[in-house]
Amino acid sequence: MMAELEPLLDITDVQRFLDAEFPQVAEDYQILEIAPKRLKLRLVPSAKHLRPGGTVSGPTLFSIADCAVYLAIIAHVGEEALAVTTGASIDFMRKPAADADLICDVELLKLGRGLVVGDAAITSAGQPGLVARATLTYSRPRK
Amino acid sequence: MMAELEPLLDITDVQRFLDAEFPQVAEDYQILEIAPKRLKLRLVPSAKHLRPGGTVSGPTLFSIADCAVYLAIIAHVGEEALAVTTGASIDFMRKPAADADLICDVELLKLGRGLVVGDAAITSAGQPGLVARATLTYSRPRK
Amino acid sequence: MMAELEPLLDITDVQRFLDAEFPQVAEDYQILEIAPKRLKLRLVPSAKHLRPGGTVSGPTLFSIADCAVYLAIIAHVGEEALAVTTGASIDFMRKPAADADLICDVELLKLGRGLVVGDAAITSAGQPGLVARATLTYSRPRK
Amino acid sequence: MMAELEPLLDITDVQRFLDAEFPQVAEDYQILEIAPKRLKLRLVPSAKHLRPGGTVSGPTLFSIADCAVYLAIIAHVGEEALAVTTGASIDFMRKPAADADLICDVELLKLGRGLVVGDAAITSAGQPGLVARATLTYSRPRK
Repeated sequence: MMAELEPLLDITDVQRFLDAEFPQVAEDYQILEIAPKRLKLRLVPSAKHLRPGGTVSGPTLFSIADCAVYLAIIAHVGEEALAVTTGASIDFMRKPAADADLICDVELLKLGRGLVVGDAAITSAGQPGLVARATLTYSRPRK
Repeated sequence: MMAELEPLLDITDVQRFLDAEFPQVAEDYQILEIAPKRLKLRLVPSAKHLRPGGTVSGPTLFSIADCAVYLAIIAHVGEEALAVTTGASIDFMRKPAADADLICDVELLKLGRGLVVGDAAITSAGQPGLVARATLTYSRPRK
Repeated sequence: MMAELEPLLDITDVQRFLDAEFPQVAEDYQILEIAPKRLKLRLVPSAKHLRPGGTVSGPTLFSIADCAVYLAIIAHVGEEALAVTTGASIDFMRKPAADADLICDVELLKLGRGLVVGDAAITSAGQPGLVARATLTYSRPRK
Repeated sequence: MMAELEPLLDITDVQRFLDAEFPQVAEDYQILEIAPKRLKLRLVPSAKHLRPGGTVSGPTLFSIADCAVYLAIIAHVGEEALAVTTGASIDFMRKPAADADLICDVELLKLGRGLVVGDAAITSAGQPGLVARATLTYSRPRK
């Protein structure tokens, strides 16, 4: 457990992992920061992420949270890690702007041998308050 | 309230609404059934929905649940309805097959003037058990 | 897995387990039915469960859901089972009557070696519609 | 909205409200702190809160989170406020000690005219890491 408190991988490592393993979404995301138990991810919304009314879709907010927590786990446990999303809850609180970056701040609340719980707070750049907050749980299968 | 127990719109109406309002995702989804408080939606997974290991991504499962509950509300309240997703929780239980249709069965558990709660049960065609189950809440703003 | 589809214990067994292990709450609950993957539990609200306005408290609704899913696991896996609640989500939809029985219908959506997911639908006797719906997840530790 | 950023009531006011309105549970709880958007609540576990294995029950953790968010709303909006719990999600992460105080730190993430979202982080005194984390949503009915 102690070894997992500090990240094993840096931004370059994790961005490379993302590009290799998830080529379909990698171009959407940029890792801004990795710190003990934490990771910060950015998404610049494009046409496919938008919805009528000049906002970003709910599934886009879910996706950035899921991706950011997963990358935080990889950063702390290593690329060969297996982690399967088992559950998520999300509250949508404010409408993000269509033309502003989304920033997702993840904190790993628990990084156990079996269960991982990550908190994801999403803001729309230049706007006060959270646009959404999610909690995601992952299971790490035994070898 | 009584008027809302029966759907106002049929499959053709709701599919047309989907095509017009959500052109970016409309081609992914086909409405299979509309009944009192219920709607059934199908997604045929394509490359963009897949993940390594021959499965469908978690965000795709979230998306079909969100879309299906939203369309169920439209079917029962009408096209001019305003309904904003305020929260969601989802449990991922079994790995869907990459090459099988996803079927999402929605039941509106509550269709109030302010709050709507929809249940979404997702199966992967030809596979026993649910692949995921979600509950979504929507707020209907006052005029 | 096959062996777990049918309940191992009957109502008398599970009620006795409840009385022995949870004496503090056992008198509140009565098991009404056990069937494959299912269990039905009743609570007769007393003063400690009530809130101003003639209704039952939210924590009481959470408690019956948690208890009912746990007992459903015990009924299917046996008394020696270890199962730890890891997460829950609940939607409160209608106000239960203070003087009506609460009935909680559980379905085990997944009964895996590691993860269990149970659905709990709560009604207030004599009132149409669900008063609450919860999903609870449990982890079964490896021996 | 601006008027709601600062608490309207202090610890004495809110403790008095708790004693008057919820006499059944008031003796369990002590308000430790009220600050802008925040409230801190303590519970000293007694026999009724415990479970086999020397720990505090899941419903007790749910209850302190629900109570603390509700009191935070009252502190910021006033005693005459109406706020109904509409949903909650909670992750249980570590086993609280039976003989240590539970501390619940609430932050109101959104305090809207219709919807309130509160975050509740629960610790067991003297133990590192959260024992549970919950998000609760409340609806404020229009007059």
